[in-house]
Amino acid sequence: MVADDAIPSIVARDERPTPREGADAIISAIAASARDALSRATVAPRDIVAAACSSPGPLDHVTGVVHETPNLVGFRDIRLADRLAESLGTKVFVDRDTCMAAVAEGLVGAARGSKDFVYVTVSTGIGGGIVSGGRMLRGATNTAGEIGHWPVGFQPDPTRAADDDIPRCNCGSFGCVEAFAAGSKIAEHFGAKTAGEVYAAAERGDARAKGIIIRAERALANLAVGLVNALNPSVIVVGGSVTEHQPSHVLEPMRAAIAARAFKAPAAAVRLVPAALGPDVGMHGAVLEARERAAGRGDWFL
Amino acid sequence: MVADDAIPSIVARDERPTPREGADAIISAIAASARDALSRATVAPRDIVAAACSSPGPLDHVTGVVHETPNLVGFRDIRLADRLAESLGTKVFVDRDTCMAAVAEGLVGAARGSKDFVYVTVSTGIGGGIVSGGRMLRGATNTAGEIGHWPVGFQPDPTRAADDDIPRCNCGSFGCVEAFAAGSKIAEHFGAKTAGEVYAAAERGDARAKGIIIRAERALANLAVGLVNALNPSVIVVGGSVTEHQPSHVLEPMRAAIAARAFKAPAAAVRLVPAALGPDVGMHGAVLEARERAAGRGDWFL
Repeated sequence: MVADDAIPSIVARDERPTPREGADAIISAIAASARDALSRATVAPRDIVAAACSSPGPLDHVTGVVHETPNLVGFRDIRLADRLAESLGTKVFVDRDTCMAAVAEGLVGAARGSKDFVYVTVSTGIGGGIVSGGRMLRGATNTAGEIGHWPVGFQPDPTRAADDDIPRCNCGSFGCVEAFAAGSKIAEHFGAKTAGEVYAAAERGDARAKGIIIRAERALANLAVGLVNALNPSVIVVGGSVTEHQPSHVLEPMRAAIAARAFKAPAAAVRLVPAALGPDVGMHGAVLEARERAAGRGDWFL
Repeated sequence: MVADDAIPSIVARDERPTPREGADAIISAIAASARDALSRATVAPRDIVAAACSSPGPLDHVTGVVHETPNLVGFRDIRLADRLAESLGTKVFVDRDTCMAAVAEGLVGAARGSKDFVYVTVSTGIGGGIVSGGRMLRGATNTAGEIGHWPVGFQPDPTRAADDDIPRCNCGSFGCVEAFAAGSKIAEHFGAKTAGEVYAAAERGDARAKGIIIRAERALANLAVGLVNALNPSVIVVGGSVTEHQPSHVLEPMRAAIAARAFKAPAAAVRLVPAALGPDVGMHGAVLEARERAAGRGDWFL
């Protein structure tokens, strides 16, 4: 993505499948894609101030190192920002995909004007970004916001192992909200290729599909109540492909749980709304974040 | 509590049982207790700069209004700061008990020097305070940090109601970490008067007591993993009476879960440590917070 003005507009795009042969192949593909997009835009390479790259995490946006990526093959402890900068010959700002999406929704999307909000994506995986008091909550080593890996369920029967019947997560843990409610996991639990097939089966009355979806909704309900009680946001923005295609199975159970189960004061203070920026949210956020960080304004908000 | 120097020292104390006849009785008892403590301290009333009062929440520390208190009878939408100020004739700073404890542990206790930490108390109830980037995370209406009411369990069987077999919480919800693992709840689930009796029964081999405690440990494990993944703190300080009496059933399962299940980068960055300040932590925090807020420094850290 290459943008030529302050409000992000996509002037050229290049999309390609993520290589499955490991980090080198992925980094080469990203660089080639950026060069191809640039060649189609009416922008001279010397006018490029910076590039930005959105990546799954956990990662450290300051060092540009990606620590591990549950849903990407062979991507571990990768100096992504440095390696892309060497390849592209420009400054590269890396951040977690969900943080960049939160930046976009916060600055020009559904959380505009809010200083305390949470961005949640329910997609292949589940992730998010937390903005508190007008700043992105980064934590001690910049990996904060991995709310998809908050465990919301466990095996309560003490005669069984802690993870018996509790879905394993790609992160190596179990009971994460992602393990119950991510699109890839809903598909996996049913033995389908896509979550869409499972929702369709449930609508036809398939009891097993219904059960998987009810369980996913209960996991999302726990996440929503926890976010409201722990963080007291004024807005929860929920995006991602599962949300977009199945709003009644994502937004509605989250809203109902907040109304029924969260503390009254923070429940009254929060709006849970769909994301405003659609599938390009990560690209919009990348441009906005690169602009802010290149101008030295990265400490505030980002 | 009355303190006469910058490092909190308790120069007089007065403790009395919390009245169960509602808010008026509680507020009168607090004011009488403060006056009695003051009369025994060698401090002239005109030298009092401010008083501070630690209360269960959720509450708004800026307005001084207590919204609701799951474990206190008849305390709802109470203008606690104003009413105490009228009664005592001095400025009164109210904050949630766990926020004041977090202030104390952060400034002079186990989290000293950390800008990103979480204080957790496992006691009659479970609560906490989140400090991020050197600031208390307050949220949109100042009720943030109620981490004891993050739901960590749910009923996964879709043929049953969402709260079947899932412990109800005093907050009105179900599945909260408090509902599984607070001292009062451990006692209640077993039908005992205190959690201590349940731990003792488990040590004697009582299978039902063991089951309740294993379930509590699994709930605390989920909380610990969630805090590390979502907030990436450098320190998690765990206090409260259950922690103090049963460290191997609180600190150890939390540490083990972080090591086994949290993302590697934030797990490597965090220390989970017992609270340093003991049962007086709330009073120390109250004095420190009153000093900072009376001096107009309440925005930073508090």
